[in-house]
Amino acid sequence: MTRAQRIAKKCRRTDAVVIANGTSPFLDPLFWYVTEQVSGTFEGSVAIISDDGTLDIVTGTLEATTAKKGLGNIHIYETRDERSHILMELLKGCGRIGVRAPCISHGAAENIRKITGAEFIDVSADISKITAVKDRKERAEIRKACAVSSKVASGIPEMLHRDITEKEMAWLIDSGMRESGGGGNAFETIAAFGPHSAEPHHSPTGTKIRKGDAALFDFGSKYGMYCSDLTRTVFFGDPGAALKRAYNVVMKAKEAGMNEMYDGAPAKNADIAARNVIDATEFKGMFIHAFGHGLGMNIHEAPSSSVRSDDVLKKGMVVSAEPGIYLPGLGGIRIEDTVLITKNGAETLTDFDKGLTVV
Amino acid sequence: MTRAQRIAKKCRRTDAVVIANGTSPFLDPLFWYVTEQVSGTFEGSVAIISDDGTLDIVTGTLEATTAKKGLGNIHIYETRDERSHILMELLKGCGRIGVRAPCISHGAAENIRKITGAEFIDVSADISKITAVKDRKERAEIRKACAVSSKVASGIPEMLHRDITEKEMAWLIDSGMRESGGGGNAFETIAAFGPHSAEPHHSPTGTKIRKGDAALFDFGSKYGMYCSDLTRTVFFGDPGAALKRAYNVVMKAKEAGMNEMYDGAPAKNADIAARNVIDATEFKGMFIHAFGHGLGMNIHEAPSSSVRSDDVLKKGMVVSAEPGIYLPGLGGIRIEDTVLITKNGAETLTDFDKGLTVV
Repeated sequence: MTRAQRIAKKCRRTDAVVIANGTSPFLDPLFWYVTEQVSGTFEGSVAIISDDGTLDIVTGTLEATTAKKGLGNIHIYETRDERSHILMELLKGCGRIGVRAPCISHGAAENIRKITGAEFIDVSADISKITAVKDRKERAEIRKACAVSSKVASGIPEMLHRDITEKEMAWLIDSGMRESGGGGNAFETIAAFGPHSAEPHHSPTGTKIRKGDAALFDFGSKYGMYCSDLTRTVFFGDPGAALKRAYNVVMKAKEAGMNEMYDGAPAKNADIAARNVIDATEFKGMFIHAFGHGLGMNIHEAPSSSVRSDDVLKKGMVVSAEPGIYLPGLGGIRIEDTVLITKNGAETLTDFDKGLTVV
Repeated sequence: MTRAQRIAKKCRRTDAVVIANGTSPFLDPLFWYVTEQVSGTFEGSVAIISDDGTLDIVTGTLEATTAKKGLGNIHIYETRDERSHILMELLKGCGRIGVRAPCISHGAAENIRKITGAEFIDVSADISKITAVKDRKERAEIRKACAVSSKVASGIPEMLHRDITEKEMAWLIDSGMRESGGGGNAFETIAAFGPHSAEPHHSPTGTKIRKGDAALFDFGSKYGMYCSDLTRTVFFGDPGAALKRAYNVVMKAKEAGMNEMYDGAPAKNADIAARNVIDATEFKGMFIHAFGHGLGMNIHEAPSSSVRSDDVLKKGMVVSAEPGIYLPGLGGIRIEDTVLITKNGAETLTDFDKGLTVV
């Protein structure tokens, strides 16, 4: 069964599912998922999945050559009017159109509504259930993306030296990932020293490392269209007792969370288990984000492992496992792996030394 | 006048303008424009510009520290319900809400509509008129982004050697931009050899360069939040007479287009002038895209220099000038600069040797 056919089957309450790209960055990765394209920009291009699983691609002359490399029946337009005309023909008789509301721009949605007069149904939750479970081809790509970032994570202690700045570390990590065969950053690398590491989403600055700093690095590589995600925290000299205790608590929280990850487990259980470990210590309340998130073509996608999640883990899902403790003014600890859900547990795809490391 | 105040003044027919980020990559660069933030992810965060130009920022606990580094009154939420409640309070009495329809997801727009019951007005064209004209701070950033990619463009003849692949060249260009102080790619670098260069949007492959190939490189660096864009085409050995003639025609077309670029000129005139030069030669019909596009925080933004554009060039706009000739099966030529519109003409911000270069 093709990916388009799986989507059609899941979205039976619609007459067609429409994936409409806007202008970069308002492009829906699902377009690449269903076409199995590995390149191209495809701004303004539309993929239509009919209720029988047929895939039609409407694209401009500029993308015509690239479009032919992927799946789907290709329809080429030169002008906006031609585009509208082709869409009208392909969507004739479709009264209920499925869209991914978070992944289509309001403008693109209104444009399709004007052309078709159809009712829109948000099928994002249905489609997430399909894309969250990675097929063989996808798992192979994610493993490669994880290998790239793991290699770089292993080299972090050697990269750190007196007077290096957060920005310089981010640059070393980014170029290290490219040199290891990665296809670019999956997201902006976080490099955070000392008190900055207590901000979960800190952007690298010109701050130099100081003795006793926690040094937190959160990064991931693309490989093909897929992402990896890991976080390694190391210490530059003795960080003092509190941060060392925090490190060991995060390690235990991670293990507790990982024990709750297997085919059929509610995704929130990992968060609850990890949070219980942290909240039973002096660091109660200092784990200020969710335990993890799915990843694939997007760095954040279904399932969510937050405490409020209703998602259920399934064999083949790829998720992050990333507990943390953040001590304002002092520093933060986060240890993160990308893991693959299996029948009886979770396979860690990222591979680096998670032991407490003092450089 | 702040950027928010300028937007409020331009969008008088609305009671407020709402910028609502979705999940990455569905983030609106305008959020960073109005807050003058230079970092952060701000997924799910909302910026509200009231009709008097007041700027309110609604953001989650995870972004609280970063949010305080930018402009606007900060409102922090912990849960989705709190977020809705804050939005409801801030947008109380707003019957007409302005949004950028291409830059807000359908889901985010429907969410705001549900909370407020307001009528939506697409103010994207109004806001583009403001953001297309770059202020002093923005021009300084763009100049730096252009300097980074120009430096790399100048080094291209030295990078090219026997057996190098498109992917390797793309990697050399990308790392060269980072080493020159750039903040990452403004878009995926195009490196295209021989027949591949006849595809305007070709993605780099493992293809090795061959004697006589046209080698086309289209790339740009970020600097801060801003982009640059240039294309350099060189020849690896003698490409034969047709490609050399095409190169010289593109040079002439570029000059003809550039002569039509100045404060007050219709943007399409550059396209018409360049196309007239090309269509008067044996290469008639082989210039298969528009002459240029605005750029700034986005690699493609207003104004458009296509033949169908109604935009008018204004002093302070930054646009690409990129005529090309594409000969299927043989190769393509594109020469592109980033230029700044001035009172009497256009200042070229990218600086590299545009003469016919045989390596």
